[in-house]
Amino acid sequence: MATRAATEHLPFGEKRDPRFFGKDILSVSQFERGDLEILFEVAHEMAEMVHRIGTFDLLKGKVLTNLFYEPSTRTSSSFVAAIERLGGSVIQINNVTFSSVSKGESLVDTVRTMEQYTDAIVLRHPEQGSAAEAAAATEKPIINAGDGAGEHPTQALLDAHTIREEMGGIDGLTITMVGDLKYGRTVHSLAKLLTLYDVRINYVSPEILRMPELLVKEVDAAGIDQIETAELGSVLPETDVLYVTRIQKERFSDTSEYEQVKDSYVITPETMLGARQRMALMHPLPRVGEITTAVDADPRAAYFRQMEYGMYTRMALLALVLGKA
Amino acid sequence: MATRAATEHLPFGEKRDPRFFGKDILSVSQFERGDLEILFEVAHEMAEMVHRIGTFDLLKGKVLTNLFYEPSTRTSSSFVAAIERLGGSVIQINNVTFSSVSKGESLVDTVRTMEQYTDAIVLRHPEQGSAAEAAAATEKPIINAGDGAGEHPTQALLDAHTIREEMGGIDGLTITMVGDLKYGRTVHSLAKLLTLYDVRINYVSPEILRMPELLVKEVDAAGIDQIETAELGSVLPETDVLYVTRIQKERFSDTSEYEQVKDSYVITPETMLGARQRMALMHPLPRVGEITTAVDADPRAAYFRQMEYGMYTRMALLALVLGKA
Amino acid sequence: MATRAATEHLPFGEKRDPRFFGKDILSVSQFERGDLEILFEVAHEMAEMVHRIGTFDLLKGKVLTNLFYEPSTRTSSSFVAAIERLGGSVIQINNVTFSSVSKGESLVDTVRTMEQYTDAIVLRHPEQGSAAEAAAATEKPIINAGDGAGEHPTQALLDAHTIREEMGGIDGLTITMVGDLKYGRTVHSLAKLLTLYDVRINYVSPEILRMPELLVKEVDAAGIDQIETAELGSVLPETDVLYVTRIQKERFSDTSEYEQVKDSYVITPETMLGARQRMALMHPLPRVGEITTAVDADPRAAYFRQMEYGMYTRMALLALVLGKA
Repeated sequence: MATRAATEHLPFGEKRDPRFFGKDILSVSQFERGDLEILFEVAHEMAEMVHRIGTFDLLKGKVLTNLFYEPSTRTSSSFVAAIERLGGSVIQINNVTFSSVSKGESLVDTVRTMEQYTDAIVLRHPEQGSAAEAAAATEKPIINAGDGAGEHPTQALLDAHTIREEMGGIDGLTITMVGDLKYGRTVHSLAKLLTLYDVRINYVSPEILRMPELLVKEVDAAGIDQIETAELGSVLPETDVLYVTRIQKERFSDTSEYEQVKDSYVITPETMLGARQRMALMHPLPRVGEITTAVDADPRAAYFRQMEYGMYTRMALLALVLGKA
Repeated sequence: MATRAATEHLPFGEKRDPRFFGKDILSVSQFERGDLEILFEVAHEMAEMVHRIGTFDLLKGKVLTNLFYEPSTRTSSSFVAAIERLGGSVIQINNVTFSSVSKGESLVDTVRTMEQYTDAIVLRHPEQGSAAEAAAATEKPIINAGDGAGEHPTQALLDAHTIREEMGGIDGLTITMVGDLKYGRTVHSLAKLLTLYDVRINYVSPEILRMPELLVKEVDAAGIDQIETAELGSVLPETDVLYVTRIQKERFSDTSEYEQVKDSYVITPETMLGARQRMALMHPLPRVGEITTAVDADPRAAYFRQMEYGMYTRMALLALVLGKA
Repeated sequence: MATRAATEHLPFGEKRDPRFFGKDILSVSQFERGDLEILFEVAHEMAEMVHRIGTFDLLKGKVLTNLFYEPSTRTSSSFVAAIERLGGSVIQINNVTFSSVSKGESLVDTVRTMEQYTDAIVLRHPEQGSAAEAAAATEKPIINAGDGAGEHPTQALLDAHTIREEMGGIDGLTITMVGDLKYGRTVHSLAKLLTLYDVRINYVSPEILRMPELLVKEVDAAGIDQIETAELGSVLPETDVLYVTRIQKERFSDTSEYEQVKDSYVITPETMLGARQRMALMHPLPRVGEITTAVDADPRAAYFRQMEYGMYTRMALLALVLGKA
C-alpha cells in the first residue's frame, strides 16, 4: 500500500492531487470520471510541453523502477520515455526470470528492495493479483503494467485518452470492438472504463470469442447500450471508434475455423470505405495482419498516434502519482 | 590501475579526498578506519540529501559503466540508483556472456574499451582476481562488485554502514554471524572489515560450515574476541547485530543433514523473543526462508533498510572516487 | 524518411546544418567531403568539451532509441555514452529477438512505434537493407548501426575521424588494410569513404580474402592509387595507417590453410619495428589475436583511442542530425 511518497520534504510550488498522489494504480475500477478528466487534461498539457521543448524537469529527483517479469518492449519503452521526458531516471529490470532477483526470491522481497532505491515501481508480472500483492507490501506507489489475465489499467487509460484526443471527447460516441473479445484483457479494461461515459458499445467477434457475459452485464448495469454481432458491416456505418484486437490462432481447436474467422475481421482499405469520414481506427499493437499496412496511410488510422498518446498519458500518471502536476 | 580520473580539468569548488579520488575499490583490506569514517559520514549526508530533494547534480558530467558478467539485479540496481541520484549517467551492460563483447574478447580489452566512454567501471565477474586484472589494465577507477570467490567490498561497506546507522556506532558491539560461514563471501569480508573496530564476533553455524580457520586467525590477530558455536541460543541474548546468511542445499552431500541443519537457524518471531530489545537483524538478501516473513514487521528487522543504506554507501563511494564529495 | 524532427518548435540559438538536420544516416555514400569536414570539426569540439566538463546539455530534451536486433555491446555503449554526454536520454532495446516486440511484429511497426516516443532511432539489424526500410517508413531520423552485409556508416566515420586526429589530416596518407578484406564490412565502408580524400590504399590479404573486385574498381574510378598484395612487409614501410581486421576461421574450408594464413598477419612488436615512427595502428575491435597485447603499450597503437574518437564522432552526428551543433 502506497501510504507515503519516497521524498517527503518537497520544495514549494508542488501541487498534489489527493486522488493520485502516492496512490497505487492497480485497476481501472479505482477511477471516477473526475479522476480521468484531471488525468487527460494533464496528459494533454504533457503533449504540448513535449512538442515545445522535448523534456522538462518536473520529475527531476525521482527514480522509477521498471520491473518486467515478462517482456513487453512497447509498454516498457513507453514508461521509460515518460519518466525521461519528465527529467526523472529509471532503473530498467527486464526479463527478471533470468536474473538473480528471481533465484527463489519472492515478488514481495524484490519490490521491497526496489522501493528502497526508487520512488515508484512499474510492475509487469504474469500472475493475476501480483500487482495488488506488491502494493500491499510496499509503501511506494505500484503501477500495474499488466498482471496476467488481470488488468492493464494504463492501457485502458491511454485508449480512452486517445479516443478523447482523436474525437474531441468521449460522450456520445459509438465504440466498436472487434476481434478476440473473450480473452483480450485490453478490451475488457476499456469497456469497464467506458462505463464512466455516455457511450454505445458494439462487440464484433466470432461466436467462440464473445465478450464474457459477466462483463456485458456489468457494463449494462451502468446503463450502457451494447450490441453483440458477428458481422462488422452491420455496425460499422454507425461507428466512431473501431477498436481492433488480435485473434490468436491458439484460441481455436479447429485450425480451419481460425483461418475462416481470421479473414472475416481483417481491416483493409475496402473496409474503411464503409466507415465514417470522421472516425478513429485503433489497435493496441502489435498487429499481425488484423489491419493491413495499406490502411496505415489513412488519416483515420490512429494506432501509431495511440502509442504517442500513451506516452503522454503515462507522463501525466507519473506526475500525478509522484505529486507534481 | 586508476592513476588519473577521466575528466581532468574540473571546475572549482571540488574537494578531492586523496584516500579515495581516482582509486580502484578492490578489497576491504585497502581501507583504514579513517577512510571508513569519511565514507560513512558522506553516506549519511547522502541519505539526508535524498530524503530532502531526491537527486542532486554532484556527479553531473560523469558516466558510469555497470559491467555485469553474471546477473545480480540487486547490486546492479543499487549502483544505477546511486549514480542517477547523483545526477550522473550509466551504461548498463548485463549478461555480458550473451553479448558480442564476450565473443572471444578478453576482459581487459572490454574494460579498456569502456573506459574510453565512461569515468568509472563497476565490475561483477565470476572469476576471482578479475577486478584486480581489470584495474591493472585501466586508468579509470574499477569498483569490484564481486569477483567470484574473491571479494565484494561494497557489500561489506554497506553492512558496516548499516550497523553504524542502526546502532549509532560500531565500537563496543557484539556481532553474531549465522548460517553458511564457510563459503559466504559476505561474512568473510564483513569480519575482516570489523577488525578496524572494537567489537566481539560470534560465529553460529553447523560444524561443516564453520568460518575458515585462516580468517579466524586473521581476526584474532587484530585482537578481536571471537566465539564459535553451533547454538544460536547461547549467544543471542548478548547479540547487538544478528547477521543471517543463507545455507545452500548444494553444500551438503547428505540431504537429510541439510534438512535438519537448515531449520535450526531459521529466524522466527519466537527467535526474536530471545533477542535484545535494541538490536539489528541483518541479511544480505535474497533470503529463501532463513528469516520468516512474519519477522518483517519487527522494528529490529533491518534487512530492507540495509538495501537503502547500501544505496547511500555506494553514492558516497562514487562521489569520493570521482572526486566530488 | 526523416523529413522533420520530433520537436519542431525549438528555442532560439540553435544552428541547423541542412546537410545533417533531420537526415537519416544510412550509408557512407550519402556524404560529400564538405559534410565530413563539418562532422569532424564538431567531433573535435566534442572531445574538448568532454575533457573539460564531462557532459553538457546540448541535447537535453532529446530521447534516443537504441534498437539492437543483434547484440553489439561496443556500438550500443558508444551511442549511449554519446547521447548521455550530450544531456539526452536513451531507451535501450537489446536482443529484440527475445522480446515481445519481435513476436511477429514487423520492423516497420516497431520503428513507427518507437518514433512516437523518441527523437531518433539507432538501428542494428541483421538484414541488409533494413535501415533503409525503416527510414522509408518513419519521419524521425534513422541511424544505421549495421545492417548485416550492408553498411555500418558510423564505423567508417569514426575510422576516418581517428585517422584525422591521429595523423593531423587524411590527405596525402597511405592507408594499408590487412586481414579479411572480402567479407569485412568495415574496410569496405572505409575504402569508399576514403575516396573523398587524396590517399593511397594498400590491401594485404590472403588470396581467398581479397578486396571485392567491384569495390576496387569503384575506388579506382575515384582516382585513388591501390596496391593489392599478400605480403604486409612489402607495403608496411610506406604505411601511415595500418588498419587490421580479423580473419575468421569460418571463412576457410581448409583449416590448415587458415592456421598458416592467420599467423602471417598477426601484428607483433617485431612487426612494428618495420613500421614508421609516426603512424597509427587501428582495429575496429574486438580482436582475437590479430594484434598481440604486447603491442598495446606502443604509442602508435591507436585502437583504444579509436573507441574514444568513436564516441566523439557519434556525439557530433547526433548533435547535427538533431539540429543542435
